Amino acid sequence: MLIQDTSNSLAHTLHLRRQSLAKLIDFPAILWSGSPSPRNFAANTFPFRASSHFIYFAGLSLPNAAIRLAAGELELFMDDPKSGSALWYGETPGREQIAVTIGADRAYPMSELELYLEGAATIPVQDAATWTQQSQLLDRWILPQQPPQGIDLQLAEAIIQLRLVHDEAALSELRKAAAVTVAAHKAGMSAVLKAKTEAEVRGAMEQVIIAHNMTCSYNSIVTIRGEVLHNEHYHHPLRSGDLLLADVGAETQTGWAADVTRTYPVSGKFSSTQCDIYDVVLAAHDACIDKIVPGVEYEDIHLLACTTIAEGLIDLGILQGKAEELVARDVHALFFPHGVGHLLGLDVHDMEDLGDLAGYEEGKQRSSRFGLGYLRLNRPLRPGMLVTIEPGFYQVPFILNNEQVRSEYQDVVNWERLSQFADVRGIRIEDDVLVTTQGHEVLTAALPNTADSVEGLVMGNW
Amino acid sequence: MLIQDTSNSLAHTLHLRRQSLAKLIDFPAILWSGSPSPRNFAANTFPFRASSHFIYFAGLSLPNAAIRLAAGELELFMDDPKSGSALWYGETPGREQIAVTIGADRAYPMSELELYLEGAATIPVQDAATWTQQSQLLDRWILPQQPPQGIDLQLAEAIIQLRLVHDEAALSELRKAAAVTVAAHKAGMSAVLKAKTEAEVRGAMEQVIIAHNMTCSYNSIVTIRGEVLHNEHYHHPLRSGDLLLADVGAETQTGWAADVTRTYPVSGKFSSTQCDIYDVVLAAHDACIDKIVPGVEYEDIHLLACTTIAEGLIDLGILQGKAEELVARDVHALFFPHGVGHLLGLDVHDMEDLGDLAGYEEGKQRSSRFGLGYLRLNRPLRPGMLVTIEPGFYQVPFILNNEQVRSEYQDVVNWERLSQFADVRGIRIEDDVLVTTQGHEVLTAALPNTADSVEGLVMGNW
Repeated sequence: MLIQDTSNSLAHTLHLRRQSLAKLIDFPAILWSGSPSPRNFAANTFPFRASSHFIYFAGLSLPNAAIRLAAGELELFMDDPKSGSALWYGETPGREQIAVTIGADRAYPMSELELYLEGAATIPVQDAATWTQQSQLLDRWILPQQPPQGIDLQLAEAIIQLRLVHDEAALSELRKAAAVTVAAHKAGMSAVLKAKTEAEVRGAMEQVIIAHNMTCSYNSIVTIRGEVLHNEHYHHPLRSGDLLLADVGAETQTGWAADVTRTYPVSGKFSSTQCDIYDVVLAAHDACIDKIVPGVEYEDIHLLACTTIAEGLIDLGILQGKAEELVARDVHALFFPHGVGHLLGLDVHDMEDLGDLAGYEEGKQRSSRFGLGYLRLNRPLRPGMLVTIEPGFYQVPFILNNEQVRSEYQDVVNWERLSQFADVRGIRIEDDVLVTTQGHEVLTAALPNTADSVEGLVMGNW
Repeated sequence: MLIQDTSNSLAHTLHLRRQSLAKLIDFPAILWSGSPSPRNFAANTFPFRASSHFIYFAGLSLPNAAIRLAAGELELFMDDPKSGSALWYGETPGREQIAVTIGADRAYPMSELELYLEGAATIPVQDAATWTQQSQLLDRWILPQQPPQGIDLQLAEAIIQLRLVHDEAALSELRKAAAVTVAAHKAGMSAVLKAKTEAEVRGAMEQVIIAHNMTCSYNSIVTIRGEVLHNEHYHHPLRSGDLLLADVGAETQTGWAADVTRTYPVSGKFSSTQCDIYDVVLAAHDACIDKIVPGVEYEDIHLLACTTIAEGLIDLGILQGKAEELVARDVHALFFPHGVGHLLGLDVHDMEDLGDLAGYEEGKQRSSRFGLGYLRLNRPLRPGMLVTIEPGFYQVPFILNNEQVRSEYQDVVNWERLSQFADVRGIRIEDDVLVTTQGHEVLTAALPNTADSVEGLVMGNW
């Protein structure tokens, strides 16, 4: 709860959001916030983080609350702090005070929610205590792992329409998250020369996020084994020939996220092979961002990344053939096996709790192609959308040592030439890009990304 | 998963633990590890932390696993990584490799667990996905919020007997947690002069924990509002007259915890009133630790803290009367409303998932007295037990502004004198104390706690 952040502008923002929702649905919606998840015992919980859909319309990350949205009005359901809780938790704001803060039209104790359920749609919250409660009260299964149906689906689609395009209040928070994330990455680069382990660099980065009273929007990746895409271990010692891949993002107190990756040499100096590959990835990164304007299909941005990487690898003699043809055969995916990015907002993969409903435009579905199947976003871009652009190059043993893969692509990969780039395990360069009416704005542009500039940051002379 | 920590000594330790268990129960026990808890969407989980009972006998924090303990033998149930997971998670150890690491006698896929359920007792895991699975497989309710019954209760009591007294392997981990926690607190003290907010001090402290590849064993308390006992906000600016209360502890990669509190002046210099109260709390802290020897009742340690605080407040003119009589009337609890400490081990409140079964000796129950009801531990001390000692002094408005309280205690509290100590909101001094055959050993003794020494640490001249 962030009482110090309250202002009429919050209530105004929330008013506009539910007015927009009311134009899209003609039935009530009830959104639950969720309850804290216990760690090893009931009183030792993970830090509470409310459901993003709740936060979008209620503004605050309140535990054990619900809101009802109907015809542009907001009703808050939550219990006042229990008598005696002031001993442990101090004087916390009660229901009426929070109702004023968020501009609720009415406020009731949680027990009265059952009187307001009729005809209401909802979206499942992730914690089982809450989706069980949702299911019991609404008398139908509300399960996070099941696609929504009926009015729940209509509600999900309406909320997606709103959340796809960020309003000014959202952008203000997203810029704060981006700024702190940039500072965290600079701290990481400044720490790496003296650090002995991945964990030390992670500590330097997350310190910045904590010091700004934010949290990490996802579990940080800080590793010299960048080819392990979801690496959440931090135990490796740093050696001077290593590249460190750091994928770390901040989340503001009201839940808005950033998501940034940089890759830099532990020694402060790329080897010539590392620099060559780095420049290929950077070329893809820059080409993709250059193309971001309203109306462009995000899938085409992804394919541009694939083609640019293929071209770069052809120039380096690692691949042979024509870039477009290589991409058509998914050759790029040997080295770039994930999508070029995703939606970003309250969730680091925004609205991924709804499966592909938000990421994929109606009528579009995930490709079964190896080189396209991991694409998380497939929509035409619109002003106000925030996306990540994060091409990469990885030498994943699981892929490159696969005999079937090697025989299938033996005509286009020069394995001997590739072996000269053994000191490149994984490189990714990721920024957060807002689609604007004029084109785009990189929210994380303050963090340098050229090989020279990241070397400079590591060496302390940038 | 901590493959780098594997050694025969882990397998040996686990062997001894289950041999001990086999002497206490004559039926099989199945312990589940639990599954990761989702944060805002399924793929964005909180960092996984296995159930402490599982860790105690399996050694590693493995997700989605179970072990069966019967007659001193260990059977591991877990699935191998899915085909394709190597792309995202790298080459992770499979079931057989982990079985060797932990010295399991046999290992099976999770699906075979249903063949081994007969007559088995268990303990509920905190996450709902797992306790639902436990309930379904064992065909009875296994609920974390319900006291265990029958063989589940017998199992819980047997495990408590073992976990109450730490073995050498546990102590080795607990010492590591204590050492990193000491370093984190020193970093906090070194940061406070330059810090502008609570969050910045928290960042400096948690950086140390992260850099050692540990986690926080509980959500840190770092606040100038120390009178709010469970304060998990970090937004206050620091002002020069403030005392900062920092209650922060590290947890090792295999789950063993520390729990330490220090309170120090933001300016580096206690006011005379702050110093007076600090010395009262420190006197209670030192007196309690001095008394720790095998055989002593922990409740008597608590009462000694109460009496020492009462004496100190009498000396300062805040209370009047005889200390023992004041404590009998719970006057101490106006300023010291919590217990003097608790068990510490794999959980920061060790085995609190079992309610008071671990904390309270058979036949003892929570007191309804205001001054005793929050005591979490009420047992005679034995060598190998690890407890916290954490007396405090707080001016909690909820208590001190209560008219009934003021009238009940008007004859013993000098409210006018108390008002001269308005710059003391909350002070707590907490260390982790191991009961030894000779007496005790303070695992966190490397962190100074006298008023002079904490001033010195803050000023950088200690």
